[in-house]
Amino acid sequence: MPRVTALPTEPPIAVFDSGVGGLTVLHECLVSLPHEDFLYLGDTARFPYGNRSAPELRGFAFELADILLEHGAKLLVVACNSATAAALPDLREHLHGRVPVVGVVKPESRRAADVTRSGAVGLIATPATVASGAYERALAGASDGAARLTSVAAPDLASLIQAGGEVDQVTVDCVERACAPLRAAAVDTVILGCTHYPLVRPILQRALGRGVEIVTSGQAIAAEVEAELERDGLTADPHRRGMYRFLSSGDPDEFRRLGTRFLQLPVARVGHVQVAPAPAGTVAA
Amino acid sequence: MPRVTALPTEPPIAVFDSGVGGLTVLHECLVSLPHEDFLYLGDTARFPYGNRSAPELRGFAFELADILLEHGAKLLVVACNSATAAALPDLREHLHGRVPVVGVVKPESRRAADVTRSGAVGLIATPATVASGAYERALAGASDGAARLTSVAAPDLASLIQAGGEVDQVTVDCVERACAPLRAAAVDTVILGCTHYPLVRPILQRALGRGVEIVTSGQAIAAEVEAELERDGLTADPHRRGMYRFLSSGDPDEFRRLGTRFLQLPVARVGHVQVAPAPAGTVAA
Repeated sequence: MPRVTALPTEPPIAVFDSGVGGLTVLHECLVSLPHEDFLYLGDTARFPYGNRSAPELRGFAFELADILLEHGAKLLVVACNSATAAALPDLREHLHGRVPVVGVVKPESRRAADVTRSGAVGLIATPATVASGAYERALAGASDGAARLTSVAAPDLASLIQAGGEVDQVTVDCVERACAPLRAAAVDTVILGCTHYPLVRPILQRALGRGVEIVTSGQAIAAEVEAELERDGLTADPHRRGMYRFLSSGDPDEFRRLGTRFLQLPVARVGHVQVAPAPAGTVAA
Repeated sequence: MPRVTALPTEPPIAVFDSGVGGLTVLHECLVSLPHEDFLYLGDTARFPYGNRSAPELRGFAFELADILLEHGAKLLVVACNSATAAALPDLREHLHGRVPVVGVVKPESRRAADVTRSGAVGLIATPATVASGAYERALAGASDGAARLTSVAAPDLASLIQAGGEVDQVTVDCVERACAPLRAAAVDTVILGCTHYPLVRPILQRALGRGVEIVTSGQAIAAEVEAELERDGLTADPHRRGMYRFLSSGDPDEFRRLGTRFLQLPVARVGHVQVAPAPAGTVAA
């Protein structure tokens, strides 16, 4: 008979992002790994990461990873496209293999390669992510070149979602515009290449039509985290109930307000963490 | 290459409920059958149905079904536990087989019987639904007596969800209380026997633990509707994009305000429909 024990503390799985978008990744992890503890760090003081240079982002990633390891993290999830693209291999090196590191892009691409039947895969992402070609390379690698990627840049969708408010026709029209080229390309699988997009998943599913499989970073990463924990013997007792908590480099109240909508679970306490100021001359628009 | 044609009008699938709860059923139908048209009727003027007598509910169901057939409905979904329990066989008789009628309870029970591996199935529902024994009978029928049902009455959960507001610890605690006996019974499948509950599905999934399959009315009904349409040759052209609209017997603005949260898709126009007043002496508390 399953029994849920009170917590003995467990080293947490740490997730970091430039803001609250990565909470959709944490959401999937919390739902599929309820026995694990999680610690989320939103670097809202330096949000957004989109226009920052790669060296700068590597510096941020090292700094955040060090903070999270001081909090006892047993595995690190980089739930941010910009940081993953700029810093992932260097971050692994920086950490000298002390903890496993899971980033975005590769998990979704592997999952898309697994689920596509026709080999025609779609991607909806921000212009920067599409321009980076990261998903194209990862999908080619994951499918041995068998899958073809049709990419659509959606310039406004993430900010529409971040702004919140009622789901309305403006959002539906924006989603329809993004999905039209994917329908035309007859894709059977679509990667959501931005952590904000799962919040409008029902609209996306209607726009893509039935039978099209949607792959999110959250689901793919949750599966990857689980596999990684098992591989390294780091899995927590499956009968315990995990807890989760938050750190923000910006205003904790603002994080909490925005975060609840992205997490779809209560956001109780948000702690503040001090990070280095963004170097002068960089755009934080 | 799939192409989405502009609408030629299609007879709609009609869904009715005492209020907005059935919109979680419509949600699943809209996501999995985007090529069909839907017409939803919320009988908010006579909400709630919970304390009404069976003869009264049969009268309501006949009246609403007649309105929906006047609007050209090709299939009728009764997305309301009370109306299904009180009226389903009589409603089918009332309609003389003019359109197929799909209710709640049986589709979820069949699905639960299909997905359970251990035969230990759980139910969370309102006290009235649990007391009716409807799911117990339906599950016994669907599994040839092989599945055992552990039922939990959650007196406050639906009203907590209806009240809305931020997902908080009060909701989590309420969900935890409901799930504790189901964990103790080691169920591997849980039926959500109230259309409000899918709105807190992530909290339920965490409380039930990993590997427990959640069965919602919406998913089960969407599958049943699809099968029924195919059986009767009523399926719309899968390349068209369907539309959906709303009727309310109460205040359309109030319906729209509450409804958007339950539907998770835009609620554009809500029409008003006149129904007979609730008979004197009945409780509409």
